[in-house]
Amino acid sequence: MKNHRYCVIMCGGVGSRFWPFSRNDRPKQFLDFFGTGRSLLQMTVDRILPLIPAENIILVTNSSYAGIIREQLPEIRESNILLEPARRNTAPCICWAAHHILALDPEASIVTLPSDHLILKEEEFRAVLEEGIRFVEGNNSLLTIGLRPLSPHTGYGYIQIGAPVEDFPGICKVKSFTEKPDLELAKVFLESGEFFWNSGMFLWRADNILKAFGRYAPEISGIFDAGKGLYATPDETRFIEKVFSSAPSISIDYAIMEKADNVFVKTADIGWSDLGSWKALYETSPRNQDGNVTQGCKVLAHQCRDTVFAVTGDKIIVAAGLDGYIVAENDNALLIYPIGEEQKIRQVVNDVRERFGEGYV
Amino acid sequence: MKNHRYCVIMCGGVGSRFWPFSRNDRPKQFLDFFGTGRSLLQMTVDRILPLIPAENIILVTNSSYAGIIREQLPEIRESNILLEPARRNTAPCICWAAHHILALDPEASIVTLPSDHLILKEEEFRAVLEEGIRFVEGNNSLLTIGLRPLSPHTGYGYIQIGAPVEDFPGICKVKSFTEKPDLELAKVFLESGEFFWNSGMFLWRADNILKAFGRYAPEISGIFDAGKGLYATPDETRFIEKVFSSAPSISIDYAIMEKADNVFVKTADIGWSDLGSWKALYETSPRNQDGNVTQGCKVLAHQCRDTVFAVTGDKIIVAAGLDGYIVAENDNALLIYPIGEEQKIRQVVNDVRERFGEGYV
Repeated sequence: MKNHRYCVIMCGGVGSRFWPFSRNDRPKQFLDFFGTGRSLLQMTVDRILPLIPAENIILVTNSSYAGIIREQLPEIRESNILLEPARRNTAPCICWAAHHILALDPEASIVTLPSDHLILKEEEFRAVLEEGIRFVEGNNSLLTIGLRPLSPHTGYGYIQIGAPVEDFPGICKVKSFTEKPDLELAKVFLESGEFFWNSGMFLWRADNILKAFGRYAPEISGIFDAGKGLYATPDETRFIEKVFSSAPSISIDYAIMEKADNVFVKTADIGWSDLGSWKALYETSPRNQDGNVTQGCKVLAHQCRDTVFAVTGDKIIVAAGLDGYIVAENDNALLIYPIGEEQKIRQVVNDVRERFGEGYV
Repeated sequence: MKNHRYCVIMCGGVGSRFWPFSRNDRPKQFLDFFGTGRSLLQMTVDRILPLIPAENIILVTNSSYAGIIREQLPEIRESNILLEPARRNTAPCICWAAHHILALDPEASIVTLPSDHLILKEEEFRAVLEEGIRFVEGNNSLLTIGLRPLSPHTGYGYIQIGAPVEDFPGICKVKSFTEKPDLELAKVFLESGEFFWNSGMFLWRADNILKAFGRYAPEISGIFDAGKGLYATPDETRFIEKVFSSAPSISIDYAIMEKADNVFVKTADIGWSDLGSWKALYETSPRNQDGNVTQGCKVLAHQCRDTVFAVTGDKIIVAAGLDGYIVAENDNALLIYPIGEEQKIRQVVNDVRERFGEGYV
């Protein structure tokens, strides 16, 4: 019996927030963040494999990461790796992947996942997806996963839930999407019980998401519709190389989710973090009695507190008197920075690029 | 005309105080401390060459550093490098070197120098040595160089001057040697005008220092006297390998200088530092407007003050909020430590060795 369930893993992101632990040529999703021997991308694949077989997993990434993906995921066959010739955010990526999968299987339903998140409760995660797939298989609906908020986090977008769907516990109509709130608003969201963190995980049937593109994002739809008949054939690559960079750079949230009227949310509590910042990493990592986190290095810390040591390679770090710091190193770059000021790191990376060149970022 | 002036440069020290900038296999004297392209040892040789020709410069070092010495000082011929088979402090080193030189030249006078100090006023340094050599050539006297103290430094030994020597301005009899004083005593020393920093630089005739060994350190003298007739011959190495490690490990100060009654001091002001600590390095290095010192690396520092960045290799360091820190790295070890607590670094190195092994020190 043919398996109509597909998974698209988006793994083309750059992620300069973890510089220099992550680097241009090896961004976050390819790093063994927790010293488990598996990168975040590998963990993402491991997590979905009990639900969706390897031959139905499609990776979409930037062409510059083709080598590292083959190295990290030899179980994914070559034809399942879609290489974007340019960076155009998530909407064009998702549109291409849907066309590709629809060409393989007109009845396909798709789980779309980021490649660089942490999920601690994997069984529950799969149960949530299982039920979500069941829902979208029988419906023209676009389903997103909303996480029960654990704190008034100002780094996430929020989804407000509306009316619950009968027979599908935990699935509701989406009332609104909101941008990252300020702290006061985030507290109101948290207390209301109506708002959930926007996870960036989506479920839909291939045909239905393409219908939504046609209706809400015709400027993208037009580009990829022109390739009908070429997807999942030897001519696909040449077509994509010709047209892809003409697509606008826009997220799926802006392009579709915030506009469509058939958007639903499955609420979940799966031990999730987007690992979007050193602070998030710090909060989700095991800490020693002084509150220090060690990522893949040997540390002798005297009177250090709440400090993250993330250094690649077989290295010893001796530190004293650091309170709330990031100590991160990779290859030819070393960062020693207060965690509380981590929002400045993007700017720092730009400064480094400008003053010292691409070789250090 | 034969040149009877010789220089012995002692370059076998380990120096764990600058770990990890200095390492077991590349201690301080072999490092390009100031980013000038020359190591401290090379600078020591460069400094003495206008006074004493390369063929009269003898290097005494541990046998494990033979390779790095040949690499750094190709101008010193093989037979001028004396390789100690064991670490025995300065007295046995000096005794051996004196025997070696006496065998080459019975009229030799010797300038003995450490290899890891900084001297800013090189012309004055050579003038001081010139006059010192003139003094010891015509006298059975042991001459040490005493530096005019610039602060009540508690990290140096002090020499108290006695009666001045006629016809040799700045040369006095030594009244006493003192150990490193506490701060209060150091202040008294400084104000008295009678006390000078003990530099570890010595001048004497080869025959006279060996006489002093015979009289004050017979347990060392006995060992090396047994080799008479073998020094500066092909049999010297085999003899030294047999006997050297039976010598006691003792400094020249304890073994001879503090006991002998023919000890003199030439006082000098030559911009000297023993670079014995990060603080000393900090004080002698050029600083930027925030008081930060950068040794051979690229640094982007935000709100850092009075911090030393000493990182080897082509590396960028981004740091924020450090005040009075050492950031030092070499190969597989990184140190981030308050300068004010640098006296703990020796212990730290021991801890690292114990917990993680020799490979990190």
